Amino acid sequence: MFGARCMRLVLRRCSSAPCPRHAATPKLLRVREALEVRDPAGQDIKVQGWVRSVRSQKDVLFVHMNDGSSLENLQVVADPGLGPSDLTFGSSVEVQGKLIKSPHKRQNVELAAENIRVVGPCDVLAFPLKYKTHHPLDYLRQFPHVRCRTNSLGALLRLRSEATAAIHSFFKDNGYLHVHTPIITSNDCEGAGEIFQVESANEKRVPGENPHFFDVPAFLTVSGQLHLEVMAGAFSKVYTFGPTFRADDSQSRRHLAEFYMVEAELSFAESLQDIMQAMEDLFKKVTDTVLSSCPRDVELFHKHVAPGQEAKVERMLKNRFIMMSYTEAIEVLKRARQEFIYKPEWGRDLQTEHERYLVQHCGEIPVFVFNYPYDLKPFYMRDNEDGAQHTVAAVDLLVPAVGELCGGSLREDRPDFLQSRLQRLGLEDTYQWYIDLRRFGSTPHGGFGMGFERYLRCILGVENIKDVIPFPRFSHSCVL
Amino acid sequence: MFGARCMRLVLRRCSSAPCPRHAATPKLLRVREALEVRDPAGQDIKVQGWVRSVRSQKDVLFVHMNDGSSLENLQVVADPGLGPSDLTFGSSVEVQGKLIKSPHKRQNVELAAENIRVVGPCDVLAFPLKYKTHHPLDYLRQFPHVRCRTNSLGALLRLRSEATAAIHSFFKDNGYLHVHTPIITSNDCEGAGEIFQVESANEKRVPGENPHFFDVPAFLTVSGQLHLEVMAGAFSKVYTFGPTFRADDSQSRRHLAEFYMVEAELSFAESLQDIMQAMEDLFKKVTDTVLSSCPRDVELFHKHVAPGQEAKVERMLKNRFIMMSYTEAIEVLKRARQEFIYKPEWGRDLQTEHERYLVQHCGEIPVFVFNYPYDLKPFYMRDNEDGAQHTVAAVDLLVPAVGELCGGSLREDRPDFLQSRLQRLGLEDTYQWYIDLRRFGSTPHGGFGMGFERYLRCILGVENIKDVIPFPRFSHSCVL
Repeated sequence: MFGARCMRLVLRRCSSAPCPRHAATPKLLRVREALEVRDPAGQDIKVQGWVRSVRSQKDVLFVHMNDGSSLENLQVVADPGLGPSDLTFGSSVEVQGKLIKSPHKRQNVELAAENIRVVGPCDVLAFPLKYKTHHPLDYLRQFPHVRCRTNSLGALLRLRSEATAAIHSFFKDNGYLHVHTPIITSNDCEGAGEIFQVESANEKRVPGENPHFFDVPAFLTVSGQLHLEVMAGAFSKVYTFGPTFRADDSQSRRHLAEFYMVEAELSFAESLQDIMQAMEDLFKKVTDTVLSSCPRDVELFHKHVAPGQEAKVERMLKNRFIMMSYTEAIEVLKRARQEFIYKPEWGRDLQTEHERYLVQHCGEIPVFVFNYPYDLKPFYMRDNEDGAQHTVAAVDLLVPAVGELCGGSLREDRPDFLQSRLQRLGLEDTYQWYIDLRRFGSTPHGGFGMGFERYLRCILGVENIKDVIPFPRFSHSCVL
Repeated sequence: MFGARCMRLVLRRCSSAPCPRHAATPKLLRVREALEVRDPAGQDIKVQGWVRSVRSQKDVLFVHMNDGSSLENLQVVADPGLGPSDLTFGSSVEVQGKLIKSPHKRQNVELAAENIRVVGPCDVLAFPLKYKTHHPLDYLRQFPHVRCRTNSLGALLRLRSEATAAIHSFFKDNGYLHVHTPIITSNDCEGAGEIFQVESANEKRVPGENPHFFDVPAFLTVSGQLHLEVMAGAFSKVYTFGPTFRADDSQSRRHLAEFYMVEAELSFAESLQDIMQAMEDLFKKVTDTVLSSCPRDVELFHKHVAPGQEAKVERMLKNRFIMMSYTEAIEVLKRARQEFIYKPEWGRDLQTEHERYLVQHCGEIPVFVFNYPYDLKPFYMRDNEDGAQHTVAAVDLLVPAVGELCGGSLREDRPDFLQSRLQRLGLEDTYQWYIDLRRFGSTPHGGFGMGFERYLRCILGVENIKDVIPFPRFSHSCVL
């Protein structure tokens, strides 16, 4: 303790009349880099960031600064006279000094300041974040332009960035080609109705001319699947990871109008097992990577936002995911002693309450439910031709708390099956190109999509989907 | 030669009545993996892919197959009797056999087939791609659902995937946080007018209610910059890489309605030099990575699509990029002996012809033009306060053939400057949140954006931007 305090004084003496030994330009370090120095030896460094706290004692000033590179702050210690009057919570600063071993147990290093410069002051009265205050996530949602400056959103954004990188690595390491599937599309995929239409905002188009910028109505994509299937006719493994859109009027904590999807397509896949294996591998590998590369950020969520979440995630990682046909699932639900709002019955969609029960029934281990009724599913899913209880080769992955995390299927690769199905729907002309894919060297193939925000909710235990995306867009709200 | 042919016969004997030694399931290999086996020793393998050529000779059948994992095909050699009648160009096949050393110089290995199964036949008459035919890029553009099955688009898509990965790696390695900036936004950023508006396609909204899904008019993003600046208030280095949109009526070979942008923002950047350095580093590092990881795919473009391009790219990589102020650039243009359509004059925008001349003038080395007239540039660029020839700290990177590849600037970080500028534009209320960023710990900062398709055109020498994106969207066209 004494040693460190002494050191500070010595260092300050150096700085006020720079001695030749210390005249070199100090090295600019990120907070994280500074914190990772194992044996600090008084090296000259400079750190830039934002002030998280200022505590002035009689003979020493403590400043905690953060630059987003880590959850932990760097502690700056200084002579009280070094702190400018506008050195407040929220201000941006540049601190130059010596990196030394900290006498405190809570941190390894601290920065003995020789110079503190306030780069940009903070109007603390107007600033929506307050010093020493815990701001709940729903309070922060009102301030999308500053919430990234809190511990929770900071950690979330680092985790989101890390998970994004881990997803790209997973696919690259496994030989998948990355494809930018289009955002604007002229087909509305599943014909779900809840889609956004896109038109030029420029009203100057000539009357009598085609009113559409693209000559046809154009929409925001709800899935890159059909375009991925194009690519799966040339590359045996492809994936995309981008924004998708639903004009869903719901304002629940589970819905966004703009969200991210990871979608993959595998050629020559003859069995749903291949698709399920890819989903399970993706989930486990990415989660492993995120947990091991950002332990402190994960801890914030697992300890403070969703206590108990750590054990839940561990259970998901340690166990083989469970497989259960839709028919079995209905039987399990019918045998359940629980009263459901929607009576489970073969041929009806699974509701959230059913999904939740099934996951509980499986011991909170993720469960694949496969082979859904033909009549419930879109045209592109492969007909199982299994008689009275007619099913398609579809699969959903259900996980604790979130429910459906992934959905996938084998695709109908037989041109005649596809054609007659589209004919019955009156969509034969619209999807002629899609039928054509089956005429020129078709392969059995399948794929899946995983909702990225659902994934983040699932591993972090975050309740509201609006808290796992930087700028949430939903019905009645598009702020910034 | 004799040895290899013999081997094939021996192997076929094994397969027709499987001996215990060869009964193990053959290992499934990608074409690329098979081609990379240095010392093939007759190992049992299985390969799946699409037929690129079939040549039947008297006593041997040659099949070239490709699965998108590499530009090179795998040569399959077989007894002519093994080839099913529907084994044609374009069909999908699964071939099982022994991987052996090829007697031909053109390839290292070949697959001595024991079994060839046509998975999906190809209707060759209807198939837009023809055997042994060179299809020009503009012909292929008519068939976005099958053009990925050609050498040129296959190579392009692999390069695009590789460049995407290299961009993410560059930023991760340099400590940037990846952010998904929103696609739908309520601000139209530069007020350029050429933007797309987004509305729910569902017409069932109640009359009298707010007609907008988001309660406000919403647009497709033209740049993630302003949202990145939000993040740059908490993280010192951030980037985004996603789709951006312009409702540009032009159908030139340089314009798309939907294209990809890489955008980065650096806090505490006090000089345009920092921004230029980041652009140059990004360009050179990503290009180095792409050239070294996909040499054959690059070669296809540098030899066959744009002969001479290799030397041009080398020149860009080997030389430090040139820096020139806008004022100098105007002087250079005024001194030029070339006649321009638009007379160069201080205060006017640089036209494509000017940009092209400047790059030529600099020996075809990329050139940064910086400090543009204040009146030409949007409100967020930092005022240089430099008197009569009033400029802002903006910079464009001009490259051979393409022209403007990147644009960047220091941002106006001073709240009073920004406020009075927005006031004059009548935008003070709209951008109150943006002004607020400057009130709560502002930092000098800046950033840039790079058009990803322009980048690909630049390094590959591809003339038309529609050939470097999987599904081009432009005025009057949104196919699939």
